[in-house]
Amino acid sequence: MHDFTYYNPTKIEFGKNKENNIGHYLQEAGIQKVLLTYGMQSIKNSGLYGKIISSLEKANIKYVELSGVMSNPLLSKVREGIKLAKDENVEAILGVGGGSVADNAKAIAAGALYDGDVWDFFTKKAEITKALPIYTVMTLAASASEMNGNSVITNDETQQKYSIGSIHVNPTLSIINPELMMSVTPEYLAYSAVDVIAHSIEVYLTASSHPTYNAMFVESIIKSVMHNTEILLEDPSNYEARGEFAWVAIQALNGLAPAGTQGGSFPNHLIEHSLSALYNVAHGAGLAVVIPAWMQWYHTKNPKQFERFAQEIFGVQSADEGIQKLKEWFEKIGAPTTLEALHIPRDAIANIAENASETAKVWGMQDLYTQENITQILQKA
Amino acid sequence: MHDFTYYNPTKIEFGKNKENNIGHYLQEAGIQKVLLTYGMQSIKNSGLYGKIISSLEKANIKYVELSGVMSNPLLSKVREGIKLAKDENVEAILGVGGGSVADNAKAIAAGALYDGDVWDFFTKKAEITKALPIYTVMTLAASASEMNGNSVITNDETQQKYSIGSIHVNPTLSIINPELMMSVTPEYLAYSAVDVIAHSIEVYLTASSHPTYNAMFVESIIKSVMHNTEILLEDPSNYEARGEFAWVAIQALNGLAPAGTQGGSFPNHLIEHSLSALYNVAHGAGLAVVIPAWMQWYHTKNPKQFERFAQEIFGVQSADEGIQKLKEWFEKIGAPTTLEALHIPRDAIANIAENASETAKVWGMQDLYTQENITQILQKA
Repeated sequence: MHDFTYYNPTKIEFGKNKENNIGHYLQEAGIQKVLLTYGMQSIKNSGLYGKIISSLEKANIKYVELSGVMSNPLLSKVREGIKLAKDENVEAILGVGGGSVADNAKAIAAGALYDGDVWDFFTKKAEITKALPIYTVMTLAASASEMNGNSVITNDETQQKYSIGSIHVNPTLSIINPELMMSVTPEYLAYSAVDVIAHSIEVYLTASSHPTYNAMFVESIIKSVMHNTEILLEDPSNYEARGEFAWVAIQALNGLAPAGTQGGSFPNHLIEHSLSALYNVAHGAGLAVVIPAWMQWYHTKNPKQFERFAQEIFGVQSADEGIQKLKEWFEKIGAPTTLEALHIPRDAIANIAENASETAKVWGMQDLYTQENITQILQKA
Repeated sequence: MHDFTYYNPTKIEFGKNKENNIGHYLQEAGIQKVLLTYGMQSIKNSGLYGKIISSLEKANIKYVELSGVMSNPLLSKVREGIKLAKDENVEAILGVGGGSVADNAKAIAAGALYDGDVWDFFTKKAEITKALPIYTVMTLAASASEMNGNSVITNDETQQKYSIGSIHVNPTLSIINPELMMSVTPEYLAYSAVDVIAHSIEVYLTASSHPTYNAMFVESIIKSVMHNTEILLEDPSNYEARGEFAWVAIQALNGLAPAGTQGGSFPNHLIEHSLSALYNVAHGAGLAVVIPAWMQWYHTKNPKQFERFAQEIFGVQSADEGIQKLKEWFEKIGAPTTLEALHIPRDAIANIAENASETAKVWGMQDLYTQENITQILQKA
């Protein structure tokens, strides 16, 4: 067991109709004015927007709105939100949507209390020391952004997709109502499943030291997400499956899985961020392409854990078979597993690899993830 | 998935030598004076006391001391601590020891900010609305008291062993250094293992609704605790095993296991509390006697989950075999499994059952756990 600090003070309110209490929760915390941020039309079409507004008004919470947050959320939108938050003196940021909306809310919350350019936090030129309180109402389960201090933002000027990680942007409270997730399309459900599996296996497969308990914990998450994805593809309104999926998605990236491990990293996210920064593919779709390729390239560096993965998750013996089974499962649920399926030309590989190798320097992973090695990985995709 | 709120803001500082930072952590929080509470001589003999004092003095933290906390901590000691905390105007309670010391610290922390009698909280006559911040340095892993809001105290006048559960007494910060746990005796290691298994199986075996993910999560904890107990009985200074044991003990009772379940209860704890209130047996020893008896009495009420337990933990098919295997494992690690082994006469059963049936009323479990039924259970022990 490697030394660690575990601290996750986000409160989760899980269950039916809990979104109707958002005004009450804000009021309890003494908050009088929020910046409400969300994506496009979907929360208006579903009626969720109306419920949120009604709850805010009932609790006398004033609000200003920032809509139009897109998946792979953009720095330009974050800057727009920071200006609005400052001009309007809001006291909290309320994100209603999926991981992109939550990530956007976090970046605004940190930027609103910072005099410099918020991008400084992403390039590690500055450290986050405070942020406005963040509240989320989630409509998609995948990122675990609702219970961690991570935010990934794409700089639309430079095509850099960079991240922050700070306890100051852990949401104060997140509302998870599985019913709000029932309208997720089969495609996005599949991408979400891949994302959760990616969060689960990154440290599991790369750590130099990994306690057995952590392995069992991660395997439980993977088994649950696979099982419940299959149920939901058949029966999208299955509440139990939707609920378990939502909860294990959070468990995959709320700090528990890596606690006590050493030397883990996030190479699949590293490479995928460049795919989606340059080609705006859905994060989970990009991961489904990167993961089998990366696994084929990497598995000889950690053969025992890859064999364990193969045995525990698929009941097969060799790393190769495990990788093949995972790829087949991605295909079965409708996730792409080749660059071609993402409509990314093979002659783009050099460019993607160059972009990713720059991120690797920011993440301290440049020794292994050189442009050459990333090119090798992508050539397997 | 049943609705739930998950909120656990305790920070865990896990690793070697972290106890030397306790003064620093208190200083960071702006705390200038603490009540330091602990058990008997053992932390002085081990040198831990000296390290704590040195760390406090280095950080200019003033302290007053309350020693002599015993296992099955007593209300009289809590009251002594509350008086001291009030007289000395301490700003936090620092418990150094095992679960009893942590429980004692919590009761003092709540009582120090209450004008009435602290026992009111245990009898549910009053609700905890605030408490002094609590810090712990743990020397024993079992109770998970270091990362929850529970405290169990025995009223030495009335022989009632009652509990509180409040977010206000979740420790602010707990230090877990597995090295501090290496001197735990084989007996107490066994009792601790039983306690962790008890925390794991109570809701697992009694909930009317229990998601599969929660089952896998709990089974991972049980497998880990059994595996690491066996390692530690052979090799008490095995850091990895000591560390994993300490961390999974926390996972068993930090609120994650029951999240989303419905209708779970803690009957084994209910009955054991009366054993230890009346006969002052070690909590884990009492549980090792109660659990197999309760399982034999209860398993037909939830046959599927008992079969799952048998299959997943022991690879056997029937509930009966699973119960027998667990009992054998308790015996293998040196835990008692009969009242006789605890030196409790069989004619005491009526008295224990009466005491426990009173607790059942406080816990809202009186419908099933009548004096008659508790008697039936204890007769199997």
